Amino acid sequence: MSIPRIWLNGALVPADEARIAPTDRGLLLADGLFETLLARAGRIIRLDRHLMRLLEGAAVMQIKPPYESRTLRAAARETLEANGLATNDRASLRMTLTRGPAGRGLALPQDPTPTLMISAAAAPAPPAGLSVMVSSVSKLATSPASPLKTLNYTDNVMARMEADAAGADEALMRSADGGIACATIGNVFVVKNGSVTTPPDDGSIRAGITRNDILALARDADLSVSEADISMETLKAADEVFLTNSLWGICPVTTVDGTALPAGPITKKLAQALEEAWASDVV
Amino acid sequence: MSIPRIWLNGALVPADEARIAPTDRGLLLADGLFETLLARAGRIIRLDRHLMRLLEGAAVMQIKPPYESRTLRAAARETLEANGLATNDRASLRMTLTRGPAGRGLALPQDPTPTLMISAAAAPAPPAGLSVMVSSVSKLATSPASPLKTLNYTDNVMARMEADAAGADEALMRSADGGIACATIGNVFVVKNGSVTTPPDDGSIRAGITRNDILALARDADLSVSEADISMETLKAADEVFLTNSLWGICPVTTVDGTALPAGPITKKLAQALEEAWASDVV
Repeated sequence: MSIPRIWLNGALVPADEARIAPTDRGLLLADGLFETLLARAGRIIRLDRHLMRLLEGAAVMQIKPPYESRTLRAAARETLEANGLATNDRASLRMTLTRGPAGRGLALPQDPTPTLMISAAAAPAPPAGLSVMVSSVSKLATSPASPLKTLNYTDNVMARMEADAAGADEALMRSADGGIACATIGNVFVVKNGSVTTPPDDGSIRAGITRNDILALARDADLSVSEADISMETLKAADEVFLTNSLWGICPVTTVDGTALPAGPITKKLAQALEEAWASDVV
Repeated sequence: MSIPRIWLNGALVPADEARIAPTDRGLLLADGLFETLLARAGRIIRLDRHLMRLLEGAAVMQIKPPYESRTLRAAARETLEANGLATNDRASLRMTLTRGPAGRGLALPQDPTPTLMISAAAAPAPPAGLSVMVSSVSKLATSPASPLKTLNYTDNVMARMEADAAGADEALMRSADGGIACATIGNVFVVKNGSVTTPPDDGSIRAGITRNDILALARDADLSVSEADISMETLKAADEVFLTNSLWGICPVTTVDGTALPAGPITKKLAQALEEAWASDVV
């Protein structure tokens, strides 16, 4: 297998030569953002929405993106092609933006050169279903960065380790109210008596692009939709539970804390609607 | 000025050649830990305590340190010497440990090769005093990693940006109770009527090595000491406020949200005691 190529600050370089400086604040302080995107046969799903979110997050964090969005759009496509992934049924892209190298300490560098990196990989088909467990880890509103897709994934890693220890595929993270806020890899939805509920975009969770797509599609399908806290009782009593993210779309939850859930008709219906929306990329 | 040299995975390399892989989970997921240390004329203050904390944090995060502590101890000294800092009155060291390079996604890699990096820099004398502001950012117990010195410093960066915008030197972060948890660069203490208070080590804050030194020294000095939530009222009514970290020791706070505080005798006394304890490094 050939060495993957990474788009790093304007050039495609072999991954084993691509160099991140040891002084990069992305590494030292999680001072940056990222996006994960899905490409299907070279078509990058919801590319503009991801770029917009990256740029909006960068504005909040006062990181000046070193490239215009049209450059990033082209770079994403080049990265797919350079890795022979432009015809793959599924490939993943990750765009990472950091504040770049700087001197020691927290003080913002005067004239930083941000790091922009795009990597690509073949993506397997999404799992047919996931077993999830409720972790001890919370996702809370702690700062203006909480709703952004920052590099701060330490807590997600810890939650995922708890899932591993419990023999589950994936972990749910708790909300301030003691309910469920999200999963480590995306947002969470529950279905009860035909109604669809996901936690509100209240500054604590990263309200994903796919989450928003699903809310729109559920409304289009005349389902009852609410953005509300999901209590543990609501989770346990749910008819269906599913997770959403940009790479997998909808992923059904088949087990919650060891209790099996049946494959649900609404999850299936929304997954189908999302597939169609993504095929035309007009949600 | 010569190029700094960094100790990276067993070798001292020029900083501009030292390469962090773009797949390092420290960069991609803030999946790692660090320590900041002070060296005075080549003597690294509280080195063993820092190493112990790094190794204990690594155990919680299930990151297997790639070197024994005696190797790290020697490496820290070599890094100082290689940068001509072994005779400096003050130099800083940073040890960074990450889970290392891995494939995409949160799943823990099967057989990771962790990254261990040590950098050194000349350190100016600590500031004589800092103006602080109360930021909107909270430091809460969200996961088993919250009390650890992980790479997750996004919130600290955001709080520091608020301080910049307010024209203050430094930001205080809020506690779950609505009081003060810590500063972005260390722990916070208030003095009132001769009593010393710092927030409790309750899983939310990073309870620093210097914080613990100060608690011990305050008790030795027969001061009344408590670990308790610092409410906004307590902060505003304080006789003295100071911050602690490993690089600066004690740093007096001279202004809180624009209100001046006098230089205080207990801050001065504890700073002197810390200086002496560090000189013999037996706290």
